[in-house]
Amino acid sequence: FSTASAPLPGDLEEGDGNPHCLCPETTSRVRFKRISSLEVIRASLYCPSPQLIATLKNGLKICVDPKATLYKKIIKKIFES
Amino acid sequence: FSTASAPLPGDLEEGDGNPHCLCPETTSRVRFKRISSLEVIRASLYCPSPQLIATLKNGLKICVDPKATLYKKIIKKIFES
Amino acid sequence: FSTASAPLPGDLEEGDGNPHCLCPETTSRVRFKRISSLEVIRASLYCPSPQLIATLKNGLKICVDPKATLYKKIIKKIFES
Amino acid sequence: FSTASAPLPGDLEEGDGNPHCLCPETTSRVRFKRISSLEVIRASLYCPSPQLIATLKNGLKICVDPKATLYKKIIKKIFES
Repeated sequence: FSTASAPLPGDLEEGDGNPHCLCPETTSRVRFKRISSLEVIRASLYCPSPQLIATLKNGLKICVDPKATLYKKIIKKIFES
Repeated sequence: FSTASAPLPGDLEEGDGNPHCLCPETTSRVRFKRISSLEVIRASLYCPSPQLIATLKNGLKICVDPKATLYKKIIKKIFES
Repeated sequence: FSTASAPLPGDLEEGDGNPHCLCPETTSRVRFKRISSLEVIRASLYCPSPQLIATLKNGLKICVDPKATLYKKIIKKIFES
Repeated sequence: FSTASAPLPGDLEEGDGNPHCLCPETTSRVRFKRISSLEVIRASLYCPSPQLIATLKNGLKICVDPKATLYKKIIKKIFES
């Protein structure tokens, strides 16, 4: 009877816990002027869609809907500001 | 009949969307050697407990249980490494 | 004789220290396949140009040249992958 | 005549650019009440000391001196607030 745990998928190693999506809910009601930075997280084996976390000008963090065309404008404006 | 939306709580402004907790689930099964960086997010009006997001050595992000004494050791070790 | 320090500029408050650019140097030699997440930081009074910090698939962080058109393609690809 | 570039050190792969420290300067004059989140980045082959990046309550980011004992208290307070 083997007690070896199942082989870890993809790029996981012992001690990685169980990576997952960070964003339980998203919004598309965030305004460009209120955003201080935007983190774009790539889709992975453990979270099949890209994630977008904005840090607001009050320091709070919020998950933005990556399908909302809004963020493309936001990133474009950030590069051109 | 006033159509003015309810006054925004605390430090929110127009265009901040609805900030919330980022971590839908947490783990305490992450090992120090696998952590590349750790983000400690303070509790706020919109997320009543502190949050802890680890970036692993494979670039993935994972929510760590802030109550697990583990993270205190992790932060201590990071400062002493 | 007033010992009051000079008024703090813009949106700084007592205890904010002296915010500044994070990225002392940047590179444009990072490949899309090696990027796990990308943080886009808006220009501000304290850092006049936008900043781009990539987290790689080995967990390391690196400042990326925001002028390199490559990164607009990377962000676009992240959302279409 | 081999044009092969020198072998990449440690955990670098093709396309990782040249990782380095993010924080050109640090401060120890940031107050706990002004901090919204704190990122603790582990020392690595490419940046020999741990780095501490605070996001302030105005959304700005600032590098904090990891040797200033203040930050151990800050992290402790974050978890007990």
